[in-house]
Amino acid sequence: MSGNTFGTQFRITTWGESHGPAVGVVVDGCPAGLPLSEADIQVDLDRRRPGQSQVSTSRSEEDMVEILSGIFEGRTMGTPISMIVRNKDARSSAYDDIRNTPRPGHADYTYQAKYGLRDHRGGGRSSARETVGRVAGGAVARKLLAQAGIDVVGYVTELGGIRSSISSISAVPAHSLKISDLRSAAESNPVRCPDQKAIALMLQAVEESRKEGDSVGGVAEILAVGVPPGIGEPVFDKLDADLAKALMSIGAVKAVEIGAGIECARMRGSGMNDPLAFIKGTEGKVGFETNNAGGILGGISTGAPILCRIAVKPTPSISKMQRTVDLVTGDDAEIEIKGRHDPSIPPRIVPVAEAMVALVLADHLLRQRSARLMD
Amino acid sequence: MSGNTFGTQFRITTWGESHGPAVGVVVDGCPAGLPLSEADIQVDLDRRRPGQSQVSTSRSEEDMVEILSGIFEGRTMGTPISMIVRNKDARSSAYDDIRNTPRPGHADYTYQAKYGLRDHRGGGRSSARETVGRVAGGAVARKLLAQAGIDVVGYVTELGGIRSSISSISAVPAHSLKISDLRSAAESNPVRCPDQKAIALMLQAVEESRKEGDSVGGVAEILAVGVPPGIGEPVFDKLDADLAKALMSIGAVKAVEIGAGIECARMRGSGMNDPLAFIKGTEGKVGFETNNAGGILGGISTGAPILCRIAVKPTPSISKMQRTVDLVTGDDAEIEIKGRHDPSIPPRIVPVAEAMVALVLADHLLRQRSARLMD
Amino acid sequence: MSGNTFGTQFRITTWGESHGPAVGVVVDGCPAGLPLSEADIQVDLDRRRPGQSQVSTSRSEEDMVEILSGIFEGRTMGTPISMIVRNKDARSSAYDDIRNTPRPGHADYTYQAKYGLRDHRGGGRSSARETVGRVAGGAVARKLLAQAGIDVVGYVTELGGIRSSISSISAVPAHSLKISDLRSAAESNPVRCPDQKAIALMLQAVEESRKEGDSVGGVAEILAVGVPPGIGEPVFDKLDADLAKALMSIGAVKAVEIGAGIECARMRGSGMNDPLAFIKGTEGKVGFETNNAGGILGGISTGAPILCRIAVKPTPSISKMQRTVDLVTGDDAEIEIKGRHDPSIPPRIVPVAEAMVALVLADHLLRQRSARLMD
Amino acid sequence: MSGNTFGTQFRITTWGESHGPAVGVVVDGCPAGLPLSEADIQVDLDRRRPGQSQVSTSRSEEDMVEILSGIFEGRTMGTPISMIVRNKDARSSAYDDIRNTPRPGHADYTYQAKYGLRDHRGGGRSSARETVGRVAGGAVARKLLAQAGIDVVGYVTELGGIRSSISSISAVPAHSLKISDLRSAAESNPVRCPDQKAIALMLQAVEESRKEGDSVGGVAEILAVGVPPGIGEPVFDKLDADLAKALMSIGAVKAVEIGAGIECARMRGSGMNDPLAFIKGTEGKVGFETNNAGGILGGISTGAPILCRIAVKPTPSISKMQRTVDLVTGDDAEIEIKGRHDPSIPPRIVPVAEAMVALVLADHLLRQRSARLMD
Repeated sequence: MSGNTFGTQFRITTWGESHGPAVGVVVDGCPAGLPLSEADIQVDLDRRRPGQSQVSTSRSEEDMVEILSGIFEGRTMGTPISMIVRNKDARSSAYDDIRNTPRPGHADYTYQAKYGLRDHRGGGRSSARETVGRVAGGAVARKLLAQAGIDVVGYVTELGGIRSSISSISAVPAHSLKISDLRSAAESNPVRCPDQKAIALMLQAVEESRKEGDSVGGVAEILAVGVPPGIGEPVFDKLDADLAKALMSIGAVKAVEIGAGIECARMRGSGMNDPLAFIKGTEGKVGFETNNAGGILGGISTGAPILCRIAVKPTPSISKMQRTVDLVTGDDAEIEIKGRHDPSIPPRIVPVAEAMVALVLADHLLRQRSARLMD
Repeated sequence: MSGNTFGTQFRITTWGESHGPAVGVVVDGCPAGLPLSEADIQVDLDRRRPGQSQVSTSRSEEDMVEILSGIFEGRTMGTPISMIVRNKDARSSAYDDIRNTPRPGHADYTYQAKYGLRDHRGGGRSSARETVGRVAGGAVARKLLAQAGIDVVGYVTELGGIRSSISSISAVPAHSLKISDLRSAAESNPVRCPDQKAIALMLQAVEESRKEGDSVGGVAEILAVGVPPGIGEPVFDKLDADLAKALMSIGAVKAVEIGAGIECARMRGSGMNDPLAFIKGTEGKVGFETNNAGGILGGISTGAPILCRIAVKPTPSISKMQRTVDLVTGDDAEIEIKGRHDPSIPPRIVPVAEAMVALVLADHLLRQRSARLMD
Repeated sequence: MSGNTFGTQFRITTWGESHGPAVGVVVDGCPAGLPLSEADIQVDLDRRRPGQSQVSTSRSEEDMVEILSGIFEGRTMGTPISMIVRNKDARSSAYDDIRNTPRPGHADYTYQAKYGLRDHRGGGRSSARETVGRVAGGAVARKLLAQAGIDVVGYVTELGGIRSSISSISAVPAHSLKISDLRSAAESNPVRCPDQKAIALMLQAVEESRKEGDSVGGVAEILAVGVPPGIGEPVFDKLDADLAKALMSIGAVKAVEIGAGIECARMRGSGMNDPLAFIKGTEGKVGFETNNAGGILGGISTGAPILCRIAVKPTPSISKMQRTVDLVTGDDAEIEIKGRHDPSIPPRIVPVAEAMVALVLADHLLRQRSARLMD
Repeated sequence: MSGNTFGTQFRITTWGESHGPAVGVVVDGCPAGLPLSEADIQVDLDRRRPGQSQVSTSRSEEDMVEILSGIFEGRTMGTPISMIVRNKDARSSAYDDIRNTPRPGHADYTYQAKYGLRDHRGGGRSSARETVGRVAGGAVARKLLAQAGIDVVGYVTELGGIRSSISSISAVPAHSLKISDLRSAAESNPVRCPDQKAIALMLQAVEESRKEGDSVGGVAEILAVGVPPGIGEPVFDKLDADLAKALMSIGAVKAVEIGAGIECARMRGSGMNDPLAFIKGTEGKVGFETNNAGGILGGISTGAPILCRIAVKPTPSISKMQRTVDLVTGDDAEIEIKGRHDPSIPPRIVPVAEAMVALVLADHLLRQRSARLMD
């Protein structure tokens, strides 16, 4: 069984290769009645679009989305929403050299091993270009979440060894977090880091590695606020399990953390457990004094902000000489990678990671509608 | 849509609450012809069984499995395999106190928020007792994997702040790893750590925290060898994505890493990328000089060992006084948790994590059968 | 991918063979809060139980159900409901003769061809005994439907060539049908026919065929009233499509009709189309003057009664000599079938068909909860 | 959960409305390595295309397909195959009159009831135009089946009350049926009936009803030969169950029969059961002397030809005056339907029904790959 569909009730199917005619997505399961236009999608596509700064690839794509179905008089109809983006600036000849010599750190060898053939141009289906469909689908999810008062924001917290001082896991009550400030700060700079002091250092680290024909990795966080308590489906489709899958399915992600994440291994129960308390000024609304759980307990949302963290590996496409094999001649080989590539992935991964988190939340929000008897 | 089924082609559905009559699992999609008996299942159930050492709960369960279907004359028939384990040593009255006061770090509050009612006894469905079904199903998967030459082993690498010197990520060629040695070393001690020097320190750390009415967390690794290149289903059901979901769906896991994991964020591309080379003495078999990728590129297995790492939070059940709320009276409250609990989860999580990894691999092994035209 | 799970949001997984230790079902996706006890299940199991009359097999099974999970203090919890029924009156030796000689009209040959091995005793998994799980799961669905004012009833309309005068397709407004009368009339006699004049003739037809070592087929209808307009999921999971699958998945069913069914082929559009009209005495509720559509248009319920009809083949187990093959010797062969069998299937298929219809309706009722934006 | 995806391992997702910009399909799960081009798709699209004869609508669409992904150098890659067909001859203004007055026999009222809004132009998503995606996806399935020696053909057996003498259910050994002859005969005339004597009568019946502003129904058969024994997944995803769903999901189909179908209700076991016999001249290949089972026993293929039959209702769009309601004014109303419509559906449903059968067979052929241990 193939794996190009994500979600159960709010579901996307993406398609397309880097150097094929187009990439796209079909969204199925979006409830009828949601106001939606191409402009809603375009805003997120523009955020992931390449060629925007010195830390992203120079491939130039307009990435104008066309909605082909599912909308009538400005609203979703409950029928599938098909969206397409044409590929325009593909330069396939740059990839002739790698047809038989798999690039280290890339999916070239594994696609060949799996399918027996592959489109080697620009990585084919394994290209980051595939995320156009995710972002377009995520934009619909985001619109649905907004109706429920849920907002999702992502930002870079570490890049090229530079760690920012941003920390979302310590004691953040749901009601006070200003997610809009976080977004403004992150979107104001090319590395998408909300910590103004770290930006220049991060840019410098990226630039240094690029000069040496190398690349750097980093860390990003995705935060969701306004998620009501109760969403997530034990015991396998837990909210954190589905978030982990969603985020790990993005190329270059090698670790996913929820809340305190890896640090929980060094904590004691008395420090890790988040005490419960009624939120003052509400009529019996339950809150948590800390949020080490990252907004999820037993795979179900607590009502506190949901916090995910991803580790992103350095771009595998580097211009340094690398050892590989020639699958046709059977000899060991060396390659230098040409083509246009991001010197660092984390800034551009942010809108993709937001999209994946939004898709999971939209799906589980709908799934929760069946958890209880109707009143 | 509920979430008690895991996998697509090799699929388990688990059921049961901690203090209900029984727990169990239905395995669907196991190919016909596999030799299977209750003894094959029991060996793994015995490894996860409580009451085996000072680092696990004193609840005493025999956990004898009964296979109710799917086997004829010692072989699987391709029909569903239903397995059941009766609950025997449940002491429900110990939980009367927590009916209305959710335990911090537990799923009590979130189950109540989700469903509007819950079985509070022993955590009900959110209890670790639910993992009996996972381990029983995983034992079937493991038997299937063995037919394909695949082996899965888990072990603890860090506990209560004590880190062992075990490191599987550095340059481990697929053909030399002695997984059987790793297993023997891990299974010989109650903390399931293969590093003999760390064992005593870990036991001491657990004991100290217990004396203080507290608990500790840790880290475990799961390693799979013999996985052929080519399994995993891009772009959403990537092998690493499904492993992340599988492992994050286990209670207490707050982070999942693949290969170099979080460390990749601090590496450069030239250090992270694993160079390819033909394996000497084979007829053109491709290997990797290092294994930072953890055996997965582009969501597809490379043929190198698959390495997963999980961070496990400290047991939330601690006897220290904790702040919570009383959902009935509407007052803030305090609780001390009674009942029988593991002072530390990582050693007992190992067979569960192995089971989840085995389930993912068995599923993807079958999924790969449809990737190409038949010869 | 195996096929022992039915439904998406309200979902059952059945397991068990005719001569194994037990048969059972896991229900996942039943909303929390539904009052449910073993008595609710037993009533339908008793209706499908063998050994009740001269038109059913003499195999004697108590079929007492045990609920193993999912219920707390008399209500569903939203967690999986596992139910088990032990097999008690299996006489396996009666089947020794057919181990290598597939019975005509049975699944013996095809199971062998598919899996390479099979449990030949009593048909193994292909036995009608498998429907215990369907009926138990259907009883839960029925309870859920009752909360929504939906009722499902089945009855025999034709048996052994005797057609009753019952006709549900002609002009039946939703509000006037007395489904309880239909049920009482059907359940009062062993052939489950509500037409009192046809009963004796049907019994006679069954008896005559039995005397000749033969068997008869028939037709049954299943009617659902109270289904609100709007359920069903185009374009593939249409309500009629899912009903057709549900009913055709029952052994012995060879045709499924909705509403006018096969007769529509001979009608003109002006006769087939059901005119719409506001129902008098309601505030703008829409009704249909006739119901040739059987309550479904475009795969979505209209609000009129849903009417399904199934053709049931004569029991393949007959005592007349039949030609077959010996799979071991490679010779043509002859068999006379021993064992205990129903001389006619339609009366006993009724509770199974009701269960399948109830499962489809419960599933789609939940699916409809996600069709629109929340108010 | 929405329902626009069909199949499990070979899977299509269709999208598009009658008067939207385009219609299309994404095929996921097609094995890598299959030769495929737009010409392979176009041939089937041309067969379903409107405007080809006096028995189909005069809407004129070129229906040129564009493949947007999944193909590289003339072969499938194992990645999703996205196909699109632009809508060109939509005349939306013709539908202004029906915006508030649902057409009897159409999905207008039910879509409105389900989603709260709908695209009324040309029926929107409920239009037969949606079947473009099915046929395009089915063409890929058909190509895959051809590799396995499987062929699927459909034809009309009854139209407007005229029954042809074609009968496929009586004693048809698998090896002698000339499916190519059947196809040539059916495709040579506008009613797609292989019985030359019936064609003129059928055309006359259609013409007569059209003159009266009315429409006629009919019956079609779909036959698949070359299907190996062993495909189909009990107990719910039986081959006949999935075929029933596939065929019933096509608009206008009100009954599905397998093999002897409804007639089995009037047969005795001794007449219905198909005797088994070794096929002469083969090395132990099993055949059946008759094929009342329609090639399926216990939900699994027998190796004999698979025979499905569908009853197709008369086109609901008729120009006669019909009674309906005005959903806005709340008054009863009358309508005469304008626009362009097929006076009879069966001839044009044939390629759609073939596509659905091909999709089911392709799916189950892949599913069977996991039924047994690998050798």
